[in-house]
Amino acid sequence: MSFSFELIAEDKQARAGTIDLGHTKVETPIFMPVGTNASVKAILPCMLKAVGAQIVLSNTYHLYLRPGIETIEKLSGLHRFMGWKRGILTDSGGFQVFSLSDLRNINPEGVYFKSHIDGSNHFFSPEYVVELQYRWGSDIAMVLDECPPYTMDKSYVKKSLDITINWAKRSIRARREHTVNALFGIVQGGVFDDLRKEAAIAMKDLEFDGFAIGGLSVGEPTEDMYRVVPIVNEFLPKNKPRYAMGIGRPENIIELIGMGVDMFDCVMPTRNARNGTLFTRFGVVNIKRQQYRDDDRPIEEGCGCYTCRNFSRGYLRHLHKAKELSFYTLASIHNLYYYINLVKSARKAILNGRFRSFKDEFYALMKEGEADE
Amino acid sequence: MSFSFELIAEDKQARAGTIDLGHTKVETPIFMPVGTNASVKAILPCMLKAVGAQIVLSNTYHLYLRPGIETIEKLSGLHRFMGWKRGILTDSGGFQVFSLSDLRNINPEGVYFKSHIDGSNHFFSPEYVVELQYRWGSDIAMVLDECPPYTMDKSYVKKSLDITINWAKRSIRARREHTVNALFGIVQGGVFDDLRKEAAIAMKDLEFDGFAIGGLSVGEPTEDMYRVVPIVNEFLPKNKPRYAMGIGRPENIIELIGMGVDMFDCVMPTRNARNGTLFTRFGVVNIKRQQYRDDDRPIEEGCGCYTCRNFSRGYLRHLHKAKELSFYTLASIHNLYYYINLVKSARKAILNGRFRSFKDEFYALMKEGEADE
Repeated sequence: MSFSFELIAEDKQARAGTIDLGHTKVETPIFMPVGTNASVKAILPCMLKAVGAQIVLSNTYHLYLRPGIETIEKLSGLHRFMGWKRGILTDSGGFQVFSLSDLRNINPEGVYFKSHIDGSNHFFSPEYVVELQYRWGSDIAMVLDECPPYTMDKSYVKKSLDITINWAKRSIRARREHTVNALFGIVQGGVFDDLRKEAAIAMKDLEFDGFAIGGLSVGEPTEDMYRVVPIVNEFLPKNKPRYAMGIGRPENIIELIGMGVDMFDCVMPTRNARNGTLFTRFGVVNIKRQQYRDDDRPIEEGCGCYTCRNFSRGYLRHLHKAKELSFYTLASIHNLYYYINLVKSARKAILNGRFRSFKDEFYALMKEGEADE
Repeated sequence: MSFSFELIAEDKQARAGTIDLGHTKVETPIFMPVGTNASVKAILPCMLKAVGAQIVLSNTYHLYLRPGIETIEKLSGLHRFMGWKRGILTDSGGFQVFSLSDLRNINPEGVYFKSHIDGSNHFFSPEYVVELQYRWGSDIAMVLDECPPYTMDKSYVKKSLDITINWAKRSIRARREHTVNALFGIVQGGVFDDLRKEAAIAMKDLEFDGFAIGGLSVGEPTEDMYRVVPIVNEFLPKNKPRYAMGIGRPENIIELIGMGVDMFDCVMPTRNARNGTLFTRFGVVNIKRQQYRDDDRPIEEGCGCYTCRNFSRGYLRHLHKAKELSFYTLASIHNLYYYINLVKSARKAILNGRFRSFKDEFYALMKEGEADE
């Protein structure tokens, strides 16, 4: 295993690059489908390849609780376990401990929490979370952090940031015992410009392979997100990848690519798919609507995904109404294909020095589509 | 469209043949996956092809209620609707009217019933059911019949049979207005040998393209099934295919192939898959069991299905426990592959004149497997 990042092209702030994970490569900017429980919901690995996924995200918190580290080790690591030979990034579990588990108790040592599955007691330290991710063979591991809720005041966010920075330093030390794979730091600091700057400066000199921007899309207004990302990116080193965690809507991704972010993950394409909300260049198709009952067109005219090449809106609406499991798969295939190819098109535009006009076209088509509805 | 059946080989009572549907061929004996709502549950058409399915079954009752005949016609027929270019057989809806709907009222004209979805009132006549199946482009249509519950006494079954025979004659007349595609008659008669004989004799001279044996696997002891099938087959013409509806367990299928049945359908492989019950040559694997937690072997050693080629029992158990949608797909792929290939192997054995030893091996492996558990 190894890790390197090569910056290939820049178009104003937007960047195109390649991450080499040793056994596989990832072209940035990249969208990473989310496979919380070592499975992208309703999607098999062969379909992930078909929609063009190069790397998926899985969750330390979930995998640690179920099936557990011993099982994944006995089953030869996460890649073999989930039948996925391309890249795997694992989240540290920080976000899930704070959003899913009951009764967490954070202190400078780490965090005590109760499992959301069976109420059992557990403890995560920064060192243990690094160890877990190396043991199951993640290509890119994330440090443990605290992601404070948007509603918290500045003094809480400052105290939380101090802990997160301290944990980052401990993670770097823990990483020295595990020479394989990559480790990313996480920049927190809420919606406070000076804290974001402080966080970015504290992180940038640590020996991380890349940097995530955390604590976004947690309820804050979009303008806050668009304001703090450039502040952070100003201080992050140019020669390392930048990853905006949990972002987001297609327009959020386009905007953040324009601000120099390289990596994205979000449950939105798969979760919205299961709710019947399908993304297209022309805006969203709510497949539940009566108007699609006898509609023989694909979800999106000209889309190259398996779903659009083979099935009509009318059929998909029928499957949704009949609660057929195939609906979840077909809708998720389309939405993932849309997200991955949107970001791939952005990359192409950056390589050709025309990201600005790509962005204009993106918004123009969206607007046109809205007029149709 | 056209229909023909060629009997290629006989090995005692067992038969191997080919059904030519004009646009596609079906090699008999054949197992047909069930796609009740124009979708085999949790399985996409590309996977159906990969597991070797040549023809699938869909349900007139369900399709008529949802999405309805107008929608399927507007969306260019059932093949285009469900994205499936190979064969489609549609059940007449008789079985579902009697098993699913509330307040059905049968009379010699047809059957009044209430939708199990919204309670709305509907009427099926033999003529209308034939028309429906032709209108949505089914390759093989089934006649409307009454399938009396196993608990009914002989006088009820006799009266019911008279109606079913009368409906069969009306179906043949209705079919003359629709010259395309195939129509199969259905032999009823419950567990009463003389009624089964009467039913077979009444059907055999009607201009059907094939014959189904209905009213099996409705709660009767297996010995009743194994006794009435040969009685019926004795009177059915040799040059037309025979289809045992809703059968069944792997051993039922093997036994009935040995009695000269050519076609099978059953929800068992897909339904049991979703419950975590996986079929193998060595018996059943209940993937929920703790013993499979760290088991790196495939469901079945040597199985060529996508699931067995890529995933361990331990991973499948994890997906099942985490209620991941991919579990239903992976388990259904394996079970369908098992069923379809079991019947394909039986066909090969018949072509080689060694069906008897094939059957012996089938039972020997099962027994060996049971000893392991």
